Amino acid sequence: MSIYGTLYLLPVGLGECNLEDVLPKRNFDLVKTLTYFIAENAKEARAFLKHCAYPEISRAQLSLINQHVKTEELISFLEPLLQGNNMGLMSDAGCPGIADPGAEIIKLAHKKGIKVVPLVGPSSIVLSIMASGFNGQNFAFNGYLPIDKVDRAKRIRELESMCVKFKQAQFFIETPYRNGNVFEDLLKTLQPTTHLLVATNITLGDECIQVKPISAWKKSTAPEFFKKPTVFGIYL
Amino acid sequence: MSIYGTLYLLPVGLGECNLEDVLPKRNFDLVKTLTYFIAENAKEARAFLKHCAYPEISRAQLSLINQHVKTEELISFLEPLLQGNNMGLMSDAGCPGIADPGAEIIKLAHKKGIKVVPLVGPSSIVLSIMASGFNGQNFAFNGYLPIDKVDRAKRIRELESMCVKFKQAQFFIETPYRNGNVFEDLLKTLQPTTHLLVATNITLGDECIQVKPISAWKKSTAPEFFKKPTVFGIYL
Repeated sequence: MSIYGTLYLLPVGLGECNLEDVLPKRNFDLVKTLTYFIAENAKEARAFLKHCAYPEISRAQLSLINQHVKTEELISFLEPLLQGNNMGLMSDAGCPGIADPGAEIIKLAHKKGIKVVPLVGPSSIVLSIMASGFNGQNFAFNGYLPIDKVDRAKRIRELESMCVKFKQAQFFIETPYRNGNVFEDLLKTLQPTTHLLVATNITLGDECIQVKPISAWKKSTAPEFFKKPTVFGIYL
Repeated sequence: MSIYGTLYLLPVGLGECNLEDVLPKRNFDLVKTLTYFIAENAKEARAFLKHCAYPEISRAQLSLINQHVKTEELISFLEPLLQGNNMGLMSDAGCPGIADPGAEIIKLAHKKGIKVVPLVGPSSIVLSIMASGFNGQNFAFNGYLPIDKVDRAKRIRELESMCVKFKQAQFFIETPYRNGNVFEDLLKTLQPTTHLLVATNITLGDECIQVKPISAWKKSTAPEFFKKPTVFGIYL
């Protein structure tokens, strides 16, 4: 038996939504038992705790990480765990460890032999993979596409050839204000028969998930995705 | 506005567990509003509905799919949707569309212009990716490894080289009674510094998630994973 605490991975909502719609009861019960948290943003972390009916928010001890925290500093974040306390790791949105800086903390926890327990919650990427109907036996998430137009077109062609060669569905995301540019490039670059998924504001009131071949996308209006978090996916 | 019904993707538990621990309240509320379901196994589907406190199970209309249903037969499964009724698609375990025959139904629904709404729930693959601490910006799920020993070793080396070349974490599964064989092959085939995740019975009472470099795995006892659903993952 480890004398260390357990690191719970706590998913949060993907935007303004009723948390009961996206988190199991267990998550709310568990959050209330924790005192120590690692989060990206103090304001959002406290708002999440409030939505969970956390009894005394001033009692919550928050450590803040972001992409700029140096690897050698990360170990200090695990101090409460090493002293035997349980901790919660939260993301800004969605699931810790998926397209999220929390992965480094989790890696370090395993290295120290700390128990890691992931809780169920919403991930726009995973819900998009489910809803795509592409290939649930073989898929890849590739993070962000390159910003440079020439590099981006090259990468899009590369991902399309992975679909063909390995029968592997390919998913990626973009900074929301650039969704229109990426969508245009996808329409220009992909084969007419390739299927494109565009999944916007997953789990929110205006959630919109569409899958069409490129030839059909070219004849329809673009999705309303300007400045809205969107997952893209392609497959044969 | 579509005159068709909505296809809801309904995750189920990953084994004997309290469903409130892994499904949001929304899922229970929504299931009770549905009459038409597509599932893999009638007995398990009815057991799930019972756990959701579905009011009158004899009222539920189940259509059963499996890997052997022919593509041309699948369209008949969508009949209730085309007539304006909502439907629920369930998996045997976990999330529909992820390592699951439901993907074909979802594909067809998109083709017909039917709205697809994925609900939040447990996926052993996704929870393993979260808990791995590998690369949450770049990962692939590869389904099952080849059964033949020579082919399997070749595939393991291929996946390891994908980790190195693309900085892409690689995940895969195995038929539970073969977990031991795959684990042995991984230890024999992978580089000593490569990290291996072994995640067994995710969300169940004896959940066990371990990440270690191959060199450390060689010195420790094998996980207790015989006949237990297990996700494997590798990264640098």
